[in-house]
Amino acid sequence: MAREGSLEERIAAYSGSFSRKRKRLAHFILSNKYYVSVASAGQVGKQVGASAATVVRFAQSLGYEGYSQLQAAVREELPGYLTALERMGERLAVLPPSGDIPQQVFHTDIINIERTASSLSPVEFEAALDAIVDADRILVVGCGLSAPAALFLAHSLRVIGFDARAALDGGLAQLVDAAHLDPSMLVIAIDLWRYARSTVELANAARHHGAAVIAITDSAVSPLAQVADYAFEAATDGVAHSLSLTALMSLLNVFVAALSYRVPEQTVESLRRVDMAYRKSKLLLTE
Amino acid sequence: MAREGSLEERIAAYSGSFSRKRKRLAHFILSNKYYVSVASAGQVGKQVGASAATVVRFAQSLGYEGYSQLQAAVREELPGYLTALERMGERLAVLPPSGDIPQQVFHTDIINIERTASSLSPVEFEAALDAIVDADRILVVGCGLSAPAALFLAHSLRVIGFDARAALDGGLAQLVDAAHLDPSMLVIAIDLWRYARSTVELANAARHHGAAVIAITDSAVSPLAQVADYAFEAATDGVAHSLSLTALMSLLNVFVAALSYRVPEQTVESLRRVDMAYRKSKLLLTE
Amino acid sequence: MAREGSLEERIAAYSGSFSRKRKRLAHFILSNKYYVSVASAGQVGKQVGASAATVVRFAQSLGYEGYSQLQAAVREELPGYLTALERMGERLAVLPPSGDIPQQVFHTDIINIERTASSLSPVEFEAALDAIVDADRILVVGCGLSAPAALFLAHSLRVIGFDARAALDGGLAQLVDAAHLDPSMLVIAIDLWRYARSTVELANAARHHGAAVIAITDSAVSPLAQVADYAFEAATDGVAHSLSLTALMSLLNVFVAALSYRVPEQTVESLRRVDMAYRKSKLLLTE
Amino acid sequence: MAREGSLEERIAAYSGSFSRKRKRLAHFILSNKYYVSVASAGQVGKQVGASAATVVRFAQSLGYEGYSQLQAAVREELPGYLTALERMGERLAVLPPSGDIPQQVFHTDIINIERTASSLSPVEFEAALDAIVDADRILVVGCGLSAPAALFLAHSLRVIGFDARAALDGGLAQLVDAAHLDPSMLVIAIDLWRYARSTVELANAARHHGAAVIAITDSAVSPLAQVADYAFEAATDGVAHSLSLTALMSLLNVFVAALSYRVPEQTVESLRRVDMAYRKSKLLLTE
Repeated sequence: MAREGSLEERIAAYSGSFSRKRKRLAHFILSNKYYVSVASAGQVGKQVGASAATVVRFAQSLGYEGYSQLQAAVREELPGYLTALERMGERLAVLPPSGDIPQQVFHTDIINIERTASSLSPVEFEAALDAIVDADRILVVGCGLSAPAALFLAHSLRVIGFDARAALDGGLAQLVDAAHLDPSMLVIAIDLWRYARSTVELANAARHHGAAVIAITDSAVSPLAQVADYAFEAATDGVAHSLSLTALMSLLNVFVAALSYRVPEQTVESLRRVDMAYRKSKLLLTE
Repeated sequence: MAREGSLEERIAAYSGSFSRKRKRLAHFILSNKYYVSVASAGQVGKQVGASAATVVRFAQSLGYEGYSQLQAAVREELPGYLTALERMGERLAVLPPSGDIPQQVFHTDIINIERTASSLSPVEFEAALDAIVDADRILVVGCGLSAPAALFLAHSLRVIGFDARAALDGGLAQLVDAAHLDPSMLVIAIDLWRYARSTVELANAARHHGAAVIAITDSAVSPLAQVADYAFEAATDGVAHSLSLTALMSLLNVFVAALSYRVPEQTVESLRRVDMAYRKSKLLLTE
Repeated sequence: MAREGSLEERIAAYSGSFSRKRKRLAHFILSNKYYVSVASAGQVGKQVGASAATVVRFAQSLGYEGYSQLQAAVREELPGYLTALERMGERLAVLPPSGDIPQQVFHTDIINIERTASSLSPVEFEAALDAIVDADRILVVGCGLSAPAALFLAHSLRVIGFDARAALDGGLAQLVDAAHLDPSMLVIAIDLWRYARSTVELANAARHHGAAVIAITDSAVSPLAQVADYAFEAATDGVAHSLSLTALMSLLNVFVAALSYRVPEQTVESLRRVDMAYRKSKLLLTE
Repeated sequence: MAREGSLEERIAAYSGSFSRKRKRLAHFILSNKYYVSVASAGQVGKQVGASAATVVRFAQSLGYEGYSQLQAAVREELPGYLTALERMGERLAVLPPSGDIPQQVFHTDIINIERTASSLSPVEFEAALDAIVDADRILVVGCGLSAPAALFLAHSLRVIGFDARAALDGGLAQLVDAAHLDPSMLVIAIDLWRYARSTVELANAARHHGAAVIAITDSAVSPLAQVADYAFEAATDGVAHSLSLTALMSLLNVFVAALSYRVPEQTVESLRRVDMAYRKSKLLLTE
């Protein structure tokens, strides 16, 4: 009886008796766990031409109470989709608080960068650069853990002459931003697991008002990626409870460096102006 | 005649005629360029038992107008100490804006992490962790390019139960912070080249009021590192005009992960409380 | 037939046939319109010992579809509860854009202050001062239009030596704040019409964690005032579409001035420290 | 011998022996104390056709060590120009911490509004409204105590459809703003006694880059007012140590109300969009 086993075990136990549609469904779920971890029963069904009700009955036939319980099982297998609390409980049970934490973290972050590098699509990247260069104004959105990344990107874009602004709070002020989006604007939205509703809603508002959206997130099937015109993925594995922003910051460096070569005159002129402002002020120690 | 050459060439041309003191001075300068790039003539002299006037005359004997011109020559040889404007001019002249910018950036950031990892002193790291755990309240300071890193660290520390707060602006509000420092507090200051005067002054205020200071910066001889109780260095090489925060973010991950293993009960209890607040709210898509 | 008239007209038309309970209900609603404008059917019923169902049937007997429609009728009669959009439409239809707008605004703000002054309860005020003085740490919360007031109060409290911090965004970062409240802390929450859910939820979290709450709001029956330990009301009438913060800022001045006389030694010592920090810095023109 | 007396007494004692130029100087200084409190010797001299050296010698002839000491004497007589620390010392010595503080504060704020109302020049006000309506983008600057006012004004302008942004920190990020000013932009700068260097420098940068500047400050002779195209004054008297923002907030209400009647279509359309964003979100309790 597989009703107590993992999702794989349950599917294996029952797959002999599956109809053609159920086989397609089983295959889709096993191959797209990240998608399933955030999609509704209806959305999953749609991918294989089945109704939401079919998906729910499929889950029940495997011994789950319903689709939510199947989804929870999928999430449990995805380390990235544990909450910080769950992840910490798990790690504390396994990893001794040994002295080599620093090297583990640095190593994990190098792997994060390598994975992020290998998933970057040059074609989508070039198209996103075009969208940035074409925009009159840029709103960089991120809240919670994503706020530092949004702050960094907005600052870096401004330093090379783009009219960029960060929206970090996800609260009422951001609704006023959402209200004033228009097709001359571009939204760059950064969002990580335990996705912020406000960021996805701002992306939706952008679509509604005709502004393009670039998503920078941890999964190509995250809710944000699904509403964006261009989506980029950064690996965010952490050693303890937390997600890592390291590879995401490296990906933002890629954008800024490539943009500076795209618009070298704008970049040099803007750097010259910023440099002059720095030199005139008394705020830097080196002037 | 070496009066037009590099610092090395000029020193080589004249070194035969140097006094013992000048030899010491020459050796010190060639071996400590980062220090010289930010130190005054008097500070450099002190390192070898010479007066400021001696250092100035030494510079003049090499064909420089004075110490500032020698210092400028030192800085020119240190890629990290070019301004963004100078760096961009240099890179645009050399590097063709080719399609492999992404891979160059990712590669450079991996090297940054490796260099940062190899420079981490385990003893100083453990001592800094002790200081963090012992502090009643923590002020994380960073402005300009360092602001995103400070925001990330303050947020991450709060998530695992430390009473941390970010000070990002470097303006008047930060002076009010400075005024209220006391020995029960800890300042973690993040500062990168073209060092912010306000961050160094806050670190000085911390010393004055008896609060310990952890510096996270790009050079062990940066002005901030020199006033800190504990100093950590991150490599920040960038491909185009800008410095990279990537390795610095990885270093912050190291701190947060190690702290979570230092105080596992506090971490789990705090994650549990944050998790509960997340679940109750409507701000996350996953609840 | 009064089914098309105002709430008053409908009640007048039917009151002859009212039961005793319905009479109490009618009287309560007409006398407490601000309360009704934000309360649920159940809450209104409770005030007169009736069930939610009774309140709904009462609304229907007056010709409304249900309680929500009755509530909407109440709100329409309360100028303070129009949205900015509704208010602007109304004002544009009535008031010619004449040159005396400045004097109208100043006059309206003086009336706002006079109304705010007359509604201040000395007893509750003294009790709130006690709570502020007793707290170890203070979180001042306000978002949207209330954010400037929260920023001002937190800054002013810090200048006279209280450990106060502003939470302005209402987003994820505020949830982390909510998670760490405890009985040694005090929340001062500022919230105006079109009340922010996040501010009320933070106040609820404060109650849950044993922290006291001072509410500063535009109505003693606002949702925030109802969960607070101490509630203060500021008049916020505006001349055009917007609410005025003027009297609320004056009320905050009252708090700060009274606190400075409550703790004169702390105030002078803190001002001395801030003054010293100002004098040492290069950020002020007068030093 | 008047060398120990007040400025008035000293001038009275010596005025018999004054040259014509010194008489003009004495008269100017006694009539323009606020100006003298912030102006250099050279600036004061210029007003009466005298050199800086003449002004210094004049100060010395009155028994002061130099111009700075005379200026300090002038400042001592201006209650608005005491630091918070000096003011508190003075008030604590005079005013008993009596129960009528609230009524004193409210009364003082009403006087502040009346003074602010009477000093508003309709002609300059209309010209400033024109400048706001004509600008493509608006940067509202204020730091320290002025930050809440700047935040309020930027928010209020955005709600009625102006492309406004607040710059509150006065640090490095503001230098990047300064670097990108151009003639299509408008700066609205808010600055109060113990004037922030960064705000005045931003105004200067605006002038340099051809952007117009509206100053909102506490004195027509403040450093900021002197570099602005349009200057407005708010009375800021406080009861205890602190300055009051109340009348300044009322003045900002005047701007926002007048602007909403200037551009009614833009206002209604923007309110409609913001209203829609509010209604769609779950952030407000009333939706």
